[in-house]
Amino acid sequence: MKDEKIIIVGAGLCGTLLGLRLAQRGYKVDLHERRGDMRLQHVDAGRSINLALSDRGLNALDKVGIKEQILNVCIPMKGRMIHPAEEDSFYSPYSGREKDHINSVSREGLNMALLDTADAFDNVKIFFNSKCESVDIENARATFRNMKTGELYEESGSIVIGTDGAGSAVRQSMMGKTTELLFNYSQNFLRHGYKELTIPPAEGGGWRIEKNALHIWPRGSFMIIALPNLDGSFTVTMFHPFKGPNGFDNLDSKEKVKAFFEKEFPTLIPYMPNYLEEYFENPVGTLGTIKCYPWQAYGKTLIMGDASHAIVPFYGQGMNASFEDVAVFDDVLEKHEGDWGKVFSVFQDMRAENTNAIADLAIDNFYEMRDKVDDPDFIRKRKLEMQLEQNYQNYYSKYSLVTFRPDFPYAKAMKIGRKQDELLLDLCTDHEPEDLNQDEVMEKILDLRNTFNYG
Amino acid sequence: MKDEKIIIVGAGLCGTLLGLRLAQRGYKVDLHERRGDMRLQHVDAGRSINLALSDRGLNALDKVGIKEQILNVCIPMKGRMIHPAEEDSFYSPYSGREKDHINSVSREGLNMALLDTADAFDNVKIFFNSKCESVDIENARATFRNMKTGELYEESGSIVIGTDGAGSAVRQSMMGKTTELLFNYSQNFLRHGYKELTIPPAEGGGWRIEKNALHIWPRGSFMIIALPNLDGSFTVTMFHPFKGPNGFDNLDSKEKVKAFFEKEFPTLIPYMPNYLEEYFENPVGTLGTIKCYPWQAYGKTLIMGDASHAIVPFYGQGMNASFEDVAVFDDVLEKHEGDWGKVFSVFQDMRAENTNAIADLAIDNFYEMRDKVDDPDFIRKRKLEMQLEQNYQNYYSKYSLVTFRPDFPYAKAMKIGRKQDELLLDLCTDHEPEDLNQDEVMEKILDLRNTFNYG
Repeated sequence: MKDEKIIIVGAGLCGTLLGLRLAQRGYKVDLHERRGDMRLQHVDAGRSINLALSDRGLNALDKVGIKEQILNVCIPMKGRMIHPAEEDSFYSPYSGREKDHINSVSREGLNMALLDTADAFDNVKIFFNSKCESVDIENARATFRNMKTGELYEESGSIVIGTDGAGSAVRQSMMGKTTELLFNYSQNFLRHGYKELTIPPAEGGGWRIEKNALHIWPRGSFMIIALPNLDGSFTVTMFHPFKGPNGFDNLDSKEKVKAFFEKEFPTLIPYMPNYLEEYFENPVGTLGTIKCYPWQAYGKTLIMGDASHAIVPFYGQGMNASFEDVAVFDDVLEKHEGDWGKVFSVFQDMRAENTNAIADLAIDNFYEMRDKVDDPDFIRKRKLEMQLEQNYQNYYSKYSLVTFRPDFPYAKAMKIGRKQDELLLDLCTDHEPEDLNQDEVMEKILDLRNTFNYG
Repeated sequence: MKDEKIIIVGAGLCGTLLGLRLAQRGYKVDLHERRGDMRLQHVDAGRSINLALSDRGLNALDKVGIKEQILNVCIPMKGRMIHPAEEDSFYSPYSGREKDHINSVSREGLNMALLDTADAFDNVKIFFNSKCESVDIENARATFRNMKTGELYEESGSIVIGTDGAGSAVRQSMMGKTTELLFNYSQNFLRHGYKELTIPPAEGGGWRIEKNALHIWPRGSFMIIALPNLDGSFTVTMFHPFKGPNGFDNLDSKEKVKAFFEKEFPTLIPYMPNYLEEYFENPVGTLGTIKCYPWQAYGKTLIMGDASHAIVPFYGQGMNASFEDVAVFDDVLEKHEGDWGKVFSVFQDMRAENTNAIADLAIDNFYEMRDKVDDPDFIRKRKLEMQLEQNYQNYYSKYSLVTFRPDFPYAKAMKIGRKQDELLLDLCTDHEPEDLNQDEVMEKILDLRNTFNYG
C-alpha cells in the first residue's frame, strides 16, 4: 500500500474505472460523487440509458480485469440497420471482418459493476452525495458539499483528478486561473438536441426489431436511432433541431407530434405504443463539444474524461475515449511513477491531440448518419469498403480504424481515414464497386498510407 | 427624446462611442463604468497605451461627428520601419497609395474625448465606479456594485448592452444560460505575453527614431514594436514567450535582461535609458482571442466589442473592429428601429462572421510580424504589392483591404487577401518583382477576384 492519497472528483464511468485502477496500483483513493449511490436507489443521471462499448473501452476494462464480466451483459451490434423514408430497410455491417462489432451496454449497469469492483478494495473510499464546489488547484485541496446536510468540508490529497463530466467543477476552478494557466477553452453546441423514447420488449419477450444492430432512421436534417437493451427493449433517441418548422419548439402538442411521426416515421410508430406520452415526459438534452488545454495545473490537479473533452455521441466513442484516457494515464504512470508533474504533462500532451480528433470525427458522423447513410454514392462506397475489408487483411475503413483498432491513436485514424474516404468516394461516384479492380484500389490505398507512416 | 432607456455596461472606447451614438438618436442612455473617471484621475486600465486607428474606426467616429477632432491628435504612420537583427533598418510602406496610412492615438486621450462628447448630452448619464455584477439577461435588469461604498443596486432598461471588454460580466451572465442559449464560446491564449517599455522624447523635444512609422524589431520567435506618441515618446511593446530559455520566466534578473537585450536588441538600448527599471516595474499581459455566439439573448441583452470578440493586437484592428460594431449596429438600428429582437439578431448575424475573420487575421499577422517581415521572399512580395498598388488603381493587398477598405467586410477581405497572398508569394519565390510582367500579374489577380465576387 502506498502512502499517497488521490482524490477523484466524480464516480461516473471514467472516475470509477480510474479509481479502481489506481487502487490496484496501491494508492489510497477517495472517490467523491455528487449523486447518491445508484446501487441503492434510482439516480437520474440525465444521460443516455445505453452506450456503445467498443475496443478502446474494452482494452481499458481488460486492464482492470473486468472485460469478460462486462461483455456478458452486452448486446453485440454488428452493423447499422438503416430505415430510409421511402425505401425498404437495409443492413450495413460495421466491418467486413466477422469478429468486429460494437456492444450495446447499460450505462447504469456498467457503472454499478465498476463501483462494486472498486468498492471491494480496502484502499478505496467512495463518498456519495459529495459535491465538489471548488478546488484549490495549486494545493490539491478540494471543497465538497454534503448534498444531504448542506455541510461544507475540505479534503486534501497528493493530487486531485477531476472526472466530473462536461460541467466539471474542477475544470471551472482551473478556468478561474485563466491567466496563470493560459487556459484555452471552447464549448460548442449543435443546433440539434436529443430526446429519448422507448421500443418496449415484444409481447411474450424478445426484441421487436433486429436485435444485433444499431438502427438508424435518417431523414436529412434530423434522425432517430435505436440501441438494444438486454430486457428486449430498445432505447430510441431522436436527434432533432431545437428550432424551426419541424423543431422541438414547434412540436408542442400531441396532435403536432403525432402528425409529424405519421409523416416522417410511420413504420416506427407500431413499435412505440407510448411514444406520445414519453415525448412529453422526457426532456430535451443538448449536444455539446468541449475542448480545453491544459488539462493539468501545477502537477497537483488533472482533469480527464468528459471534464476535459466532452464530445457528441455520433461516433459511439464518448465513453470509449474516457476509458482510453484511463488506460493511457496508467501507461504514463507506469513510466514516470513518482513525478506527478511529469505524469500529468506527458499524459495531456499525448492525449489532447487524440481527443480533439475524436471530437471532430463525432461531429462529422452526425452529418453522415442523418444525411448520407441512405445516399447512393455513400452506399456504394460502404459496399466497396466491406469488400476490401473482406478481401484484404490490411484494409481498415475510417470507421474500423477508429472503432476496432485501438493501436491507432484517434488523430492518426482520423488523418488516414479521411484521406481514404476522399479517395473511395471519388472512385464510387462514377462506378459500381463491382466495376472496380479491387487490387488497383488497394494499391492506391497503400500508396496513400505510405505518405502517413501508417504503421 | 425617446422614452426607452438603454443600459450600457462599460464606458471604454466601444461603450462610450455607442452611448454617444444612441444619445444622438434620442435614447436615454445610462453608461456604467467600473473604473473611476479617467478625466479626473489616472486610471490604470491595464491596457496598451496607444493604438492604431484606421479607416474602419474613423468611419464610426465620422458618424458621430468627431473624426477630424480625433485626427488632430493622431500621428500618421505610413509604413513599417523594420529593424532586422543583422542588417540595416529598412522602411516598408503600408500601401502604394500616398493617402493610405494608419494613426497612432492615445487610448486615454481618445476615451476622454468620447466621454466629453457623450457627457454633453442631457440624455446621457455616466456612472463611474459602477461595476456590473450580473445581468438578468431575459429582463434587461443589471446588478451593479458601487466600488467606493460596496453598495449593490439594480437598474432596469429596455435593453442592456455589454461593452465591458474581454472579461465581460454581461457575457458571463449569458454563459450562465449556456443550455438555454446553446452558448458557444472559446478563449485561446497565445503562449506569448507582452510587456510595455518606453523610448522617451529626445533631449530638447522631438522623436528619437522615425516618427511616422510603426517600428518592428523582428526576431523569429519574439519581437518588439514601437508606436509614436504626441509628446515625442514611443510606447515600446515586447511580444515574448512566457516560458523557455529566453522566456519572460527566465528573464528574471537585471543581469539576464541586460544580457538578453545586448544580444538581441543592441541598437534599441541607446533609445531606452530606463528599460531595465521599466522591465521590472511593468506587468506581463496575456494575448487572448475570444469568440462566442450568440451575442444576444431574448432581444433584451446584447454584447459587442471585446465582450463578444476579443482579438490579439497584431493587425491593429481591435479598436477599429469594435468601433465598426457601433457603425454597423447603427445601420441595422436605422432599418429595424422599434424591434430590438430583430435589430440584435440581424446585427449579430452580419457581424460575427466578420469579427471571427479579423480574429484569425490578427493571429496570422503575429507570425508575419515576428517571423516574416525580414524574409527575402516576403520582402519581394511586399515590393511587388507596392508597385501594383502604385500602378493599378484597383489593386489592394490583403493589408490594404483590411485596413483601408472599410467597404469590404473583414470576412471578404480575408478570403480575397489570402488567395492574393498565395498567388503573389508563389510568383515572388522564384523572381524579383522587376522580372515579372505586372500586367500579367494583375490579370491573374483579376481572374482570382472574379471567383470571389470581388465587387
